[in-house]
Amino acid sequence: MLIVTRKTDRKIVGIIGGMGPEATADFYMRLVKRTPADRDQAHLHVVMDGNPAIPDRTESFLNESDATMEAVVESALRLEGMGAGILVMPCNSAHIWFDGIVSRLSVPLLNMVEEVFSAVRKADLRTVGLLATAGTVRSGLYERYAGEVNLLVPADDERERIHEAVYAVKAGIGPGEARGGKDVLLEVVAGYREQGAEGVILGCTEIPLLICQADLPGFPVFDSTDILVDATLREALPR
Amino acid sequence: MLIVTRKTDRKIVGIIGGMGPEATADFYMRLVKRTPADRDQAHLHVVMDGNPAIPDRTESFLNESDATMEAVVESALRLEGMGAGILVMPCNSAHIWFDGIVSRLSVPLLNMVEEVFSAVRKADLRTVGLLATAGTVRSGLYERYAGEVNLLVPADDERERIHEAVYAVKAGIGPGEARGGKDVLLEVVAGYREQGAEGVILGCTEIPLLICQADLPGFPVFDSTDILVDATLREALPR
Repeated sequence: MLIVTRKTDRKIVGIIGGMGPEATADFYMRLVKRTPADRDQAHLHVVMDGNPAIPDRTESFLNESDATMEAVVESALRLEGMGAGILVMPCNSAHIWFDGIVSRLSVPLLNMVEEVFSAVRKADLRTVGLLATAGTVRSGLYERYAGEVNLLVPADDERERIHEAVYAVKAGIGPGEARGGKDVLLEVVAGYREQGAEGVILGCTEIPLLICQADLPGFPVFDSTDILVDATLREALPR
Repeated sequence: MLIVTRKTDRKIVGIIGGMGPEATADFYMRLVKRTPADRDQAHLHVVMDGNPAIPDRTESFLNESDATMEAVVESALRLEGMGAGILVMPCNSAHIWFDGIVSRLSVPLLNMVEEVFSAVRKADLRTVGLLATAGTVRSGLYERYAGEVNLLVPADDERERIHEAVYAVKAGIGPGEARGGKDVLLEVVAGYREQGAEGVILGCTEIPLLICQADLPGFPVFDSTDILVDATLREALPR
């Protein structure tokens, strides 16, 4: 039996990963780079269960299946067993089952969608557009947490094209600047701006692998990966 | 009690991480990008224990301390408990204690240094230079596995400068192209070439965050991170 000892009041961060794998690696790299640390030993202790076999989120939602939720809970419990004191799930669509997941856990799971709206409210914006997978859009996940924020969602044909861009990242197609999905996403954002959007939410952790704030100078971009990194540091480091 | 079921003959990969955190994130990102997969579910299941509190490798070696080895074994056993069927340790210096570590484990641990020399022999090179931390160089770790390969190691003043470049990465200083350590490393490589080196080993996983093959066109670069990624895919995917 291994005893996990904690020498400080820092929390071990557990990453429920693999949804998808590149987005998980990107989250972990950003977390490392944003941690204030002057040597290895000043960084956070991070444990990760990157199980890409977790069933596809959009498919589970459309088929009204609990398979994704059950697999996520299994990962989360494994991370609790590794000593995680706080859990994060760098996948927006998996948050469709957030309430069902947290009800089975003993340690807190950060809510990425809640954190995104907290950032939107801090910026005092009233209307924002959402870039997300078909599952996230059709489930109404983001509307659930929007409160008084007016949320613009993609039209049916745009949903399909955004979904294709995300799944091309998952397929490892077109790494780096060559990734074709970027143009699709920027077109949808241009449409949102015509409809009065004052900012855009990158509400899928594959989307920050395609576009970022630098692609939209002067237009507020709410990057769900970056926002979850900031929330993780806020919760895991001693206050 | 959680039961880890394996639906295929793939192995769960366990990453003994945190040495240093950015090198671990880099290893995991490269592993994801190099995995032949057309969707999330085709990727490898990867578990990671990124414990940056593992004592500094060079310090442990110089102080003749077992503290690093004990902490690595603890991480490895935690990963075995998570169901890992193969372990990797993307830190060259930690391999100083390789034999002591494997003697305590139930699942195989890939040997990054052995894999590097396997690549050097495949390229049929006789003389190669080594870029590594002071601990790796002073312990003679690479000499132990060199066999008939003639290994050039840094002179005393160069050791100090390479070590500083590596520890600047660990401190998060100068991300991207601005990282000052690059010039130091390229100077040492130029010296190796004057001494007859036919290639260079990036024998520390922070060094590929500073230089890569593109910096040395036509001169074979043995990147220990990439070589460990290839070995991981070879061992973890069904044959």
